[in-house]
Amino acid sequence: MLSKEKLTINKDRLYSTLEELGQIGRYLDERTGLQGVNRLALTAADGEGRRRVVAWMKELGLAVTVDKIGNVYARRDGRDNALDPVMMGSHIDSVPTAGRFDGCLGVLGGLEIVRSLNEKGVTTKRPVVVAFFTDEEGCRFSTDMLGSGVAVGRIPLEDAYAKTDRDGLVLRDELEKVGFLGDADPLVKPPHAYLECHIEQGPILRANDMDIGVVEGVQAISWQAVSVQGKSCHAGTTPMNLRIDAGVAASKLNLHLREMIASGQYGEHMRATMGGITPVPGLVNIVPGRCEVTVDLRNPDDELMRKSERDLLKYYEQLEAEDGVKITWRQTARTDSVMFDPGVKDRIQAAAQAAGLKFQRIISGAGHDAQEFASICRTAMVFVPGEYDGISHNPREFSTDEQCANGVNVMFEVLMGLAEE
Amino acid sequence: MLSKEKLTINKDRLYSTLEELGQIGRYLDERTGLQGVNRLALTAADGEGRRRVVAWMKELGLAVTVDKIGNVYARRDGRDNALDPVMMGSHIDSVPTAGRFDGCLGVLGGLEIVRSLNEKGVTTKRPVVVAFFTDEEGCRFSTDMLGSGVAVGRIPLEDAYAKTDRDGLVLRDELEKVGFLGDADPLVKPPHAYLECHIEQGPILRANDMDIGVVEGVQAISWQAVSVQGKSCHAGTTPMNLRIDAGVAASKLNLHLREMIASGQYGEHMRATMGGITPVPGLVNIVPGRCEVTVDLRNPDDELMRKSERDLLKYYEQLEAEDGVKITWRQTARTDSVMFDPGVKDRIQAAAQAAGLKFQRIISGAGHDAQEFASICRTAMVFVPGEYDGISHNPREFSTDEQCANGVNVMFEVLMGLAEE
Repeated sequence: MLSKEKLTINKDRLYSTLEELGQIGRYLDERTGLQGVNRLALTAADGEGRRRVVAWMKELGLAVTVDKIGNVYARRDGRDNALDPVMMGSHIDSVPTAGRFDGCLGVLGGLEIVRSLNEKGVTTKRPVVVAFFTDEEGCRFSTDMLGSGVAVGRIPLEDAYAKTDRDGLVLRDELEKVGFLGDADPLVKPPHAYLECHIEQGPILRANDMDIGVVEGVQAISWQAVSVQGKSCHAGTTPMNLRIDAGVAASKLNLHLREMIASGQYGEHMRATMGGITPVPGLVNIVPGRCEVTVDLRNPDDELMRKSERDLLKYYEQLEAEDGVKITWRQTARTDSVMFDPGVKDRIQAAAQAAGLKFQRIISGAGHDAQEFASICRTAMVFVPGEYDGISHNPREFSTDEQCANGVNVMFEVLMGLAEE
Repeated sequence: MLSKEKLTINKDRLYSTLEELGQIGRYLDERTGLQGVNRLALTAADGEGRRRVVAWMKELGLAVTVDKIGNVYARRDGRDNALDPVMMGSHIDSVPTAGRFDGCLGVLGGLEIVRSLNEKGVTTKRPVVVAFFTDEEGCRFSTDMLGSGVAVGRIPLEDAYAKTDRDGLVLRDELEKVGFLGDADPLVKPPHAYLECHIEQGPILRANDMDIGVVEGVQAISWQAVSVQGKSCHAGTTPMNLRIDAGVAASKLNLHLREMIASGQYGEHMRATMGGITPVPGLVNIVPGRCEVTVDLRNPDDELMRKSERDLLKYYEQLEAEDGVKITWRQTARTDSVMFDPGVKDRIQAAAQAAGLKFQRIISGAGHDAQEFASICRTAMVFVPGEYDGISHNPREFSTDEQCANGVNVMFEVLMGLAEE
């Protein structure tokens, strides 16, 4: 048995690893003067970030395994290695305009916990694994939670391998290029439990002056790639009534998404975003003949999500009729809402309470690797607040050393309980 | 003096040169199965097209001059070479999604007239020049009528040289790369008159069953590059009321352009187009923090054009107030309406009438090199109809051999009159 001494991490050490990893893929955002991070999945920068984290794992004496989809698992032996491990994980890939906390806190927080255990000479009953998963963001290959989706069997390996980016580069080739095409079976043996500490990426905790979010679950996510086909023609000569302007139709769709939310029909938590808009040919004096857009819908309520999806398809028909365009779409990602394990959530809440931290229950707006593990084992997440309305996917993304350490210490406490079962 | 025999061109020969030039830069439009043409200014394909046309000029015994902005002039001696020449010109660069008629008809029509003069052994009193001008389309370097604008002194050579494309490539370097950085003074000595035969690029002549358009003038053109600055953030987590979505604001602007037209306040001939829309970063799960768009306004009425420009700026302020975005813009092209020479227009009408062709007066919706020459000499244009609603800037662009020959023959007749003055 462990001593009753409460274990905590070294706040400054954790923060310095976040800063060091954040140097990799960094760029200067010229408009704001801020340092941003761009470690898009399986680019050279992601490869460099991966090697940095693997080096830390090895320095900590962990046994590192890379699987066939590039997920990396670092294992610390327990007192009984026949038992299933407790896993802590997240991702280190980023969107192209990121800060240095998204994903990294969960991975480096897990490593800092291991570092603290090593320092104190503590060996847990169960083994402990710290993992990072390939292409959680989905920005490059259009499907998020790709690595963890393969790990839990939701996404077939061959489907993942065949994915291509905008330049037609194939995921398997890119994985090989960065040196992370491993040989371990990607189907993970269900761990005893899975924990993930993550920044909230939203304004709620900070606005409510909370230290910790006990994450109830993850809302449903639906991504579409929508192609609006019109007719390209000369912008100076073609009378307005003869135009089929795919860009105008796409603009209507963008504003319709706002109207759907304003209608209140889909609940107050619905989110809808058109992040990608690409008119073809995209030139000043040519009426766009085609416009490729993306639609991102989120809703914590699965029924309301399905209603919004159905209604959106009806709107496509309406737009086709009104504007003369032809609309085709494909689903690029789709997950139902996921609720985390009630018992583990209670432990997170108890740990926060015991540490004198202010906490609240919260629904995650973003998708996370944890939602994949929820399908195979007891899983829960710890959120920490972010400054500036919790802005994320932006160089301004920022959580203080205190905020980060609070979240990792809560995860540490819960880990110690689970690892002794 | 010339004999009274009416000179005409060889229809098939003209059409075969249009087809041959149209092979250069051609591509297969996968959605329609049509052959398109992409000879964007100063690309390798444009260079190849230029060399093809220069070779034809030399085969016809013309003296070829290339000036410092890459404009090419091919001169045929007259009986009195001290007299200013009559010039026929247009362009052979294209938008990236073009057919094979836009611009090329004027240049190859001019060369076919020379070919016919050679064949008949006719020497005009004044010299005759056939010219093509650099980057008429403006698609690549953001300013249209660039070469002819430099030729007539509207655009300083150094300003033209400094222009860059999307990839930051500098115009002067690109001119050198394709081998058309000539050494002749780009400021052209005003010719006796300037003629240009062009496809209408609109539906009017075809709808009215006309053979010839006697072009009254060119409408005013105003191009803006507009930058809408919002705040990038996470699409899944950021509450709708905290978003400053630059893509949504750009969509509102696009629909506002339609509303401006529908209001009727700017006359029935106003055209407005948002051809370029580039959200940044442009990814599915990130609310666009910035959106770069283009605005193309056209109006034959200068007063109404100015009113639309003023009102658009007011709308930018309204959008800033409503959406919290910040809008900056710069003018990338601006020309007032240009009226062509009444005398030359009457000659075009008379030539059409004499040939038994149906004609009408028409305003040009597109900008043309002729509008530049109108500032330095007597200038007019001949339009020919196009099939499929006169669609242009599209692989479907199509005029028949008959339609093309009619226009060139009318230009031929007017040329012969002007060249004997």
